[in-house]
Amino acid sequence: MKATAIAHTNIALIKYWGKRDNVLILPANSSLSMTLDQFYTETTVEWSDSFTEDQFSLNGKIQSDAKVGRFLSILRDQFSLTSFAHVTSTNHVPTAAGLASSASAFAALALAASKAAGRNDDETTLSRLARQGSGSASRSIFGGLAIWQKGEANDGSDSYAYEIPTPSKLDLALVVAVVDAGPKKVDSRLGMQTTVETSPFFEAWTKQATLDLEAMQRAMKENDFVTMGEIAERNALTMHATTMAANPPFTYMQPLSLALMDAVRDLRVAGIPAYFTMDAGPNVKVLCLTKDAERVKEALSVHTSLLYICHPGPKARVITHD
Amino acid sequence: MKATAIAHTNIALIKYWGKRDNVLILPANSSLSMTLDQFYTETTVEWSDSFTEDQFSLNGKIQSDAKVGRFLSILRDQFSLTSFAHVTSTNHVPTAAGLASSASAFAALALAASKAAGRNDDETTLSRLARQGSGSASRSIFGGLAIWQKGEANDGSDSYAYEIPTPSKLDLALVVAVVDAGPKKVDSRLGMQTTVETSPFFEAWTKQATLDLEAMQRAMKENDFVTMGEIAERNALTMHATTMAANPPFTYMQPLSLALMDAVRDLRVAGIPAYFTMDAGPNVKVLCLTKDAERVKEALSVHTSLLYICHPGPKARVITHD
Repeated sequence: MKATAIAHTNIALIKYWGKRDNVLILPANSSLSMTLDQFYTETTVEWSDSFTEDQFSLNGKIQSDAKVGRFLSILRDQFSLTSFAHVTSTNHVPTAAGLASSASAFAALALAASKAAGRNDDETTLSRLARQGSGSASRSIFGGLAIWQKGEANDGSDSYAYEIPTPSKLDLALVVAVVDAGPKKVDSRLGMQTTVETSPFFEAWTKQATLDLEAMQRAMKENDFVTMGEIAERNALTMHATTMAANPPFTYMQPLSLALMDAVRDLRVAGIPAYFTMDAGPNVKVLCLTKDAERVKEALSVHTSLLYICHPGPKARVITHD
Repeated sequence: MKATAIAHTNIALIKYWGKRDNVLILPANSSLSMTLDQFYTETTVEWSDSFTEDQFSLNGKIQSDAKVGRFLSILRDQFSLTSFAHVTSTNHVPTAAGLASSASAFAALALAASKAAGRNDDETTLSRLARQGSGSASRSIFGGLAIWQKGEANDGSDSYAYEIPTPSKLDLALVVAVVDAGPKKVDSRLGMQTTVETSPFFEAWTKQATLDLEAMQRAMKENDFVTMGEIAERNALTMHATTMAANPPFTYMQPLSLALMDAVRDLRVAGIPAYFTMDAGPNVKVLCLTKDAERVKEALSVHTSLLYICHPGPKARVITHD
């Protein structure tokens, strides 16, 4: 009743921003992401009748984490278990990079918990499970590129991710520029909810994101990197625009985020196809081709020394089990 | 047939952003502004049958300005004149402050041109005229606070500004923090048009701005400075959010703009009611009470030395005429 799994973080090129169901974690729009080779979470789960409570340790320290506790209850229920779980996680993210992600955490936890329970859940089932811990975790079950389809059902049965082919002629890279490794000023879950409830732009955002996803898939099929990058960059800015119109307004952008965006625009002026994206935090991620990644990293190094070149990473996998 | 007039710049607290008619310069939403005592344009207009063409000089240099040329043709037409005009303007804005505004320019030009033509146009007529040079100029005909009502008529006859009372118990100030005195990267007229044509958020913006204006007028009547500030700040961010979702996306914010916004938020944490606004450029303007203006200026001085404390200014006026 014990298993260890690894899942990698992912960065959305078409963002997930806003839920249509806060309990089941069902999104208002479908999203598309790249799983990253550089950053991952390794998690061991043991279910045992001898445990008197759930326990969770992260990077060697016992944690009290309401989201993990809630997720273990969901798993116990769906696995028809009565026992408690001990969970041991390690984030393989460079110290202080501020890139620890709930996506890799809940994907690794879902997979390890399922395997430790003696189950052989398929990836669709695992994705649906991981989604209930953290929406973006549904995508970290898969490697390369993945789409999390929003689904239509009220019970969330059709809201899961699936892998899509990477553009056959493009060798994609993502340069992560760390602006601030500290905790977020506005937690992404809270930021999302405030946006859904108060931003006059939220409805238009979900419509635009749906159009962006269709356009992105066309561009990927056509190996059209410039169009892919333009869509990703615009989609990210559109998402961030929704928060500036929320009540109260807020932004994840910091002065250094804007400076990095300008540096990316300057790279394009210099002939390097590079496009930024940004999640619910100040770090800037730059989509480029592998052949240009070192040049991109060098250009950004004026602004930050915390830079990582990533490539599409592998899917979540079990590494040991009893 | 010669007259000199002065008009002051204004800063919108509820922004004008987007036209419903590009030729007549009719706005998609009504706006509200404060005319500033510190910055103004002084303009002399002479109409003479002896002139063989229109001529425009700004700060002592002959200019070729398409907008001024177009506006002089409009004035000539509406005044039923056949003569040409010589226009001499001086911007009374601290050198390199980057605050030269088309609002004060076209308001002063409309008033001087009307007076030089021997007319006694009322302020409503002058506001309608000034609007056809630059939308925000319609508000610079008035002192204190002014609302430019969008109007409904296709011919623009009901699209003009009028003065409203300043909150009786509030001594308002506006601290202007200059971030970049250089020319704008995206001209406001072009930025506005791109937003109208491509931003999925434009329609929601006009609706929100209309609600914001109503709420702002209520707060002003109640002398509720905190609500006034919150509405102004949110309205500005909502306007700037529309540009980030345009295609291609763009922003007037620079890293230093964000740093100044953070400084304003820090002032509020320290108990000083201060609220920022931003127009189609990177400079940040901070609405506060006169008693706090020096403290606001001091807090912002960490980021820029180009700071000006302004108060509600006077209406446009003729200073000499033949």
